Amino acid sequence: MSSEFSIIDQFFKPLSAGMKQQGEIGIGDDGAVISCPSESQLVVVTDTLIEGVHFPEQTDAYDIAWKALAVNLSDLAAMGATPAFYTLALTLPEKYHDDPWLMAFADGLKAIGERFSIPLVGGDTTKGPVLTLTVTAQGWVPVGEAILRAGAGVGDDIYVSGLIGDGGLGLKAVEQMLEETGQDYRQCIEKLNRPMPRIELGKALLSLASAAIDISDGLLADLKHILEASAVSADVDFSQVPFSSAMMRYQRRSRDYLMPLVAGDDYELCFTASKARRAEIEALAETIGVRLSRIGEIKELEGQASRVCLMNLPENLADLEGRQGYQHF
Amino acid sequence: MSSEFSIIDQFFKPLSAGMKQQGEIGIGDDGAVISCPSESQLVVVTDTLIEGVHFPEQTDAYDIAWKALAVNLSDLAAMGATPAFYTLALTLPEKYHDDPWLMAFADGLKAIGERFSIPLVGGDTTKGPVLTLTVTAQGWVPVGEAILRAGAGVGDDIYVSGLIGDGGLGLKAVEQMLEETGQDYRQCIEKLNRPMPRIELGKALLSLASAAIDISDGLLADLKHILEASAVSADVDFSQVPFSSAMMRYQRRSRDYLMPLVAGDDYELCFTASKARRAEIEALAETIGVRLSRIGEIKELEGQASRVCLMNLPENLADLEGRQGYQHF
Repeated sequence: MSSEFSIIDQFFKPLSAGMKQQGEIGIGDDGAVISCPSESQLVVVTDTLIEGVHFPEQTDAYDIAWKALAVNLSDLAAMGATPAFYTLALTLPEKYHDDPWLMAFADGLKAIGERFSIPLVGGDTTKGPVLTLTVTAQGWVPVGEAILRAGAGVGDDIYVSGLIGDGGLGLKAVEQMLEETGQDYRQCIEKLNRPMPRIELGKALLSLASAAIDISDGLLADLKHILEASAVSADVDFSQVPFSSAMMRYQRRSRDYLMPLVAGDDYELCFTASKARRAEIEALAETIGVRLSRIGEIKELEGQASRVCLMNLPENLADLEGRQGYQHF
Repeated sequence: MSSEFSIIDQFFKPLSAGMKQQGEIGIGDDGAVISCPSESQLVVVTDTLIEGVHFPEQTDAYDIAWKALAVNLSDLAAMGATPAFYTLALTLPEKYHDDPWLMAFADGLKAIGERFSIPLVGGDTTKGPVLTLTVTAQGWVPVGEAILRAGAGVGDDIYVSGLIGDGGLGLKAVEQMLEETGQDYRQCIEKLNRPMPRIELGKALLSLASAAIDISDGLLADLKHILEASAVSADVDFSQVPFSSAMMRYQRRSRDYLMPLVAGDDYELCFTASKARRAEIEALAETIGVRLSRIGEIKELEGQASRVCLMNLPENLADLEGRQGYQHF
């Protein structure tokens, strides 16, 4: 059995290639040493994935690694940050302590790390009973320009990127809660296992969006975080929320039309912007080749609590009170 | 049962007080936003503690929290960094999901965070089967001045701070592998549970030490990391390694004289410095009130592999090959 040190040397040190600017230190000391670009602030995000809680037990090592970094990059994207570096705390049960698993895991990290130019700069590898991954990812934003949840203003448009609910549908498919898990769900399982963080979009939104969040807990729950931070409410036009054809077939069959709004694992961005920016946002969607859907409008708070009104629902649906998304507790 | 969000609001948000410089963002958004002091580099360290692996199951919540941050601060100290901020990824089993446990845990974090002026800026709280804490702590060093493992030069003195082995003796006491666990071991258990990171010493060593590491895996194992990074060997004078009276009694009784050199959990600093700096280092020990013991000297590498020669051993001890400390694997 390899020691912690040989695992780091063999599998993780190669992932710190590409960081070495003049005077920077990566894996192999008590800590990493990072130079700060001028006129920048640091954005720090962290997310834990636990086997059996955040991903099913049979998930590929490659996909686990990809997702652990992707969900953190998605948080950086929501703030408009440019990815800079990350650390990984990896708790490995004995059963995964073999070279093929570790190699596939390192390959997944390498693929997404290179895709988004973010090196691994340090970490901690421990032995424990449950596979647990904590990534802390960091990025840079121009001073004072990070996109926050608190900036949504009354009258702002509400947008989402991509398609909503496919990650959640992929999870249902993997867990075999669906009648079929064939071709129809392949793209959803891909989205579940290898989400593509919207880094380019987030950076472009720095000068456009008034508030943003990534959709990890479900569109309604995450939109609600924007609303609460901004002390506003929202109208959302259900008919404008973008669904895949697989999702629409699922909705027709199950009559569970709201599933995509409360399922997590989308890793799309939900953001708000002044109506004055509509033309720029349409142009941006073209430029970066990402679908951006205008799904609603920010409204004044009535009373104390932020609320979401869903308009144009397909049938007479129950009140959504209490269905604002998945919470880990 | 409280939700993840109410745990964060109730217990963790108060720990981010004190960070709010102009334009900084703490807990409550997708990520934290941190301003970078000019002429500084960022030092990033991360360590995971798992119940039953890194601390015994009956450990107090306060002590668990203290130690999770302390071991990371100890890594910052070894690099000479000034603590700046940290994130916490906390995986909580159901049994700890109650207010008294969480309150004691938050109190422990608050105590050490305030002691070293380091605010919590973000994190992730998840539900899982095994109590797991990953802290990622960050600090600042003047550009190019971080103390690395690689700087030890032939002829340099080798020093350690404090007393060696008491953390390991505390662990033996807690695990009741000792005949008695009374007054004699109280200070050792204190050292095990609430190690005091050598932040002030580390900062003072920025201009004095040629290499440094914190002693977490055992003095011999950690010294070996300096030797390997610096491509040198070392002579260590066993009679100069500082032990507590409890440790000396343990050694006499058990005849296990080497235990303190291979036990982990010391969180003291081991560092090297040019002989020309002896007077300054003696003065430093006085100024900051920390015992600094000169325990050996850096030697040239003979052949390929770094080695530690132990001089003045109390009896005829076996070769130390293969006993260079505790490895997690």
